[in-house]
Amino acid sequence: MPHYALSPTYLFTPKGFLKGQTLIFDTTILAFGPSEAIAQEYPDAVVLPTPPYSILTPGFINLHVHLEFSSHTTQYKYGQFLPWLYSVMAKRDELVGGCDTSCHKKALQSMLESGTTTIGAISSYGTELQACVDTPQRVLYFSELIGSNAAMVDALYGDFLARLNSAQKHNSSRFEAGIAIHSPYAVHPILIQKALDIAQKERLSVTAHLLESPAEYEWLTQGTGDFAPFFAKLLHQSAPLCTPQEFVAHFAQIPTLFTHATQLDAPTLALLSPQHHAILHCPISNRLLGNGVLDIEALYEANIPYMCATDGLSSNTTLDIRQELQSALFLHAHSHLPTLALALLHSVTTTPSYHTPFNVGRIEVGMQADMVLFALPEAIEHEEDIALHLILQHYPIEAIFIDGQSTLWGKNN
Amino acid sequence: MPHYALSPTYLFTPKGFLKGQTLIFDTTILAFGPSEAIAQEYPDAVVLPTPPYSILTPGFINLHVHLEFSSHTTQYKYGQFLPWLYSVMAKRDELVGGCDTSCHKKALQSMLESGTTTIGAISSYGTELQACVDTPQRVLYFSELIGSNAAMVDALYGDFLARLNSAQKHNSSRFEAGIAIHSPYAVHPILIQKALDIAQKERLSVTAHLLESPAEYEWLTQGTGDFAPFFAKLLHQSAPLCTPQEFVAHFAQIPTLFTHATQLDAPTLALLSPQHHAILHCPISNRLLGNGVLDIEALYEANIPYMCATDGLSSNTTLDIRQELQSALFLHAHSHLPTLALALLHSVTTTPSYHTPFNVGRIEVGMQADMVLFALPEAIEHEEDIALHLILQHYPIEAIFIDGQSTLWGKNN
Repeated sequence: MPHYALSPTYLFTPKGFLKGQTLIFDTTILAFGPSEAIAQEYPDAVVLPTPPYSILTPGFINLHVHLEFSSHTTQYKYGQFLPWLYSVMAKRDELVGGCDTSCHKKALQSMLESGTTTIGAISSYGTELQACVDTPQRVLYFSELIGSNAAMVDALYGDFLARLNSAQKHNSSRFEAGIAIHSPYAVHPILIQKALDIAQKERLSVTAHLLESPAEYEWLTQGTGDFAPFFAKLLHQSAPLCTPQEFVAHFAQIPTLFTHATQLDAPTLALLSPQHHAILHCPISNRLLGNGVLDIEALYEANIPYMCATDGLSSNTTLDIRQELQSALFLHAHSHLPTLALALLHSVTTTPSYHTPFNVGRIEVGMQADMVLFALPEAIEHEEDIALHLILQHYPIEAIFIDGQSTLWGKNN
Repeated sequence: MPHYALSPTYLFTPKGFLKGQTLIFDTTILAFGPSEAIAQEYPDAVVLPTPPYSILTPGFINLHVHLEFSSHTTQYKYGQFLPWLYSVMAKRDELVGGCDTSCHKKALQSMLESGTTTIGAISSYGTELQACVDTPQRVLYFSELIGSNAAMVDALYGDFLARLNSAQKHNSSRFEAGIAIHSPYAVHPILIQKALDIAQKERLSVTAHLLESPAEYEWLTQGTGDFAPFFAKLLHQSAPLCTPQEFVAHFAQIPTLFTHATQLDAPTLALLSPQHHAILHCPISNRLLGNGVLDIEALYEANIPYMCATDGLSSNTTLDIRQELQSALFLHAHSHLPTLALALLHSVTTTPSYHTPFNVGRIEVGMQADMVLFALPEAIEHEEDIALHLILQHYPIEAIFIDGQSTLWGKNN
């Protein structure tokens, strides 16, 4: 494979946007620096064309999506968590049965075309495994463990192990199997411990939903609220399995991505460690289900990173991560705008680069060359606003590279 | 003109969504009711085709847009009001000169194609007059008065009158001239009174920017803050012209649309009257300029209506009013979602129907037949969420009617 050279107007690195740079890559990033010096150092590099104005970023990383729920768009009841959950359960067979491999592939393709080159797929049933193995994107494939009823745990655990084993057979440079623990309210502590023992032994990536709704918080802390009749009727369960703090304590030594955390309280936040833990933040899903707003200032104070993600189409209208970042600008309406925009862009590149088994997410020498090239209609006058405009303007994507190979070129232009 | 019949799946009226209705219209709405009864009553009506699932709404009304600032998209400094204002002023000639009639028409066309059939255009220079006269949409054309420096007021007032007179010559069923008072900080009280005397005598529509930024509030109430050096340097002015309450008092008996009001305080709110006043709410502009969030709960308590509007492209990325409603869902993140969505839809139809000189904005017998027909891919399962999905899903527009004439048919399908 030859060396390629790209000279975007703006290059997005962990340190921010750089101008006048040329980047050299084959399957990995080999070098970047001032264009003149790089041209002398790599005289034989194949120069790839760029639009008159352009931005090059790492491929976006979206670590929380339920691909199995990609069918339908207006079948669910929005506004509150439990009415939504009941509306999903009422359609569950139709919902999962209605999304076959071609439906999964369509969802993956839409994510690729909007610049997402690495995803974290939460898999409840394993029906989307083949699509995730076949897709050009990198997939962190989290087989999900669920089961709160003691009488059912053995059967559910067996099913989980079978799905995990099936997934692990496909491990490669673009696919890696991991474990999802459904949530504090839906997994028995015995099951959690068994799954985390495997994760620790085999060094698997781990994720879990955490404190998503006010109803969940009330149930876990007081055993009351909208969840009480849900558990009483459907699972003959009259008390929660653990408190939020007991749940988080299971993960004390295990690198874990906790999703949502919109109802995180101070004592539970205090148990999270910057070394092991990060939050996956799904702004659109949180708003559509009436789950409140993640306190990103409190996370910042506690030094716990967050990363934006889309969740599934059952609580979103799109899997385009840029729409998520745009909505976050409005959801966090009192944060300083250009600062927030830059943090959001890092939240789908730099930040998750430290939380996947793949060597991606940063424009840095030695990283895999997973990158997106955006075409701009004009120069950006105020350079401190580049991240903001990248989020707001939905610039057409000129090219997408995975391992330095173009998977899309000029399609949108 | 024959009678036409339309039978959408869902018909949006001031009382909410109705099912199983047929609507009869020529240039105005003649009748609507249960389809069977209407078919018997109007056997000769020409039945227009509708998609298998559809929504019919009044054409949207967007009463605050600066068409003259429709060129450029990334030339301004976002995040705070005064840095933005300086960045606009630095480009003012280029900005206004760079948007000619074809640029104005393009902006109007984009609004039409996204369902907006009535607009309120704030005109600083009068350069977009011809485009507004020629467009198929209804235009409430507000010639804007500005001038705080006593030495300049006569010249500026003369210019304003000339622009107002030019506009008034075009008054018709689709065009009406009105008056915009720039803001409390930029118009001398003597000028305000002269303009409002004309408005009262000639019964003209009136609008004014009000308490848009924290800087404006500080300047008007304390004479300090970011506005102080602005006025000192550019206008040799060391004190504000009036307090917010003195400004609003000018409009006590005059129906007025106040724009922004993100920094409205309780004493000023108390001076607004439900009979005469309403707020134009521009969520995207407010967020991009760091101006805070309109307190829609306080307005609700005070019985002061609000209506969403886009502002100009100098503080927005689109003139599609649906994007404004969508952003508002996130900006007002703690409002009950389906209730807010319904209020937002009324805010661009029912509410402004009472604040324009045109007989539009409600599906009601006797109103002009300005309407939009949306095509849905499927039925909406939970009918209380129809407004929400209409905002979220950006359904393709099947047809747009103005005075019962189709101005767009199936273009997006």
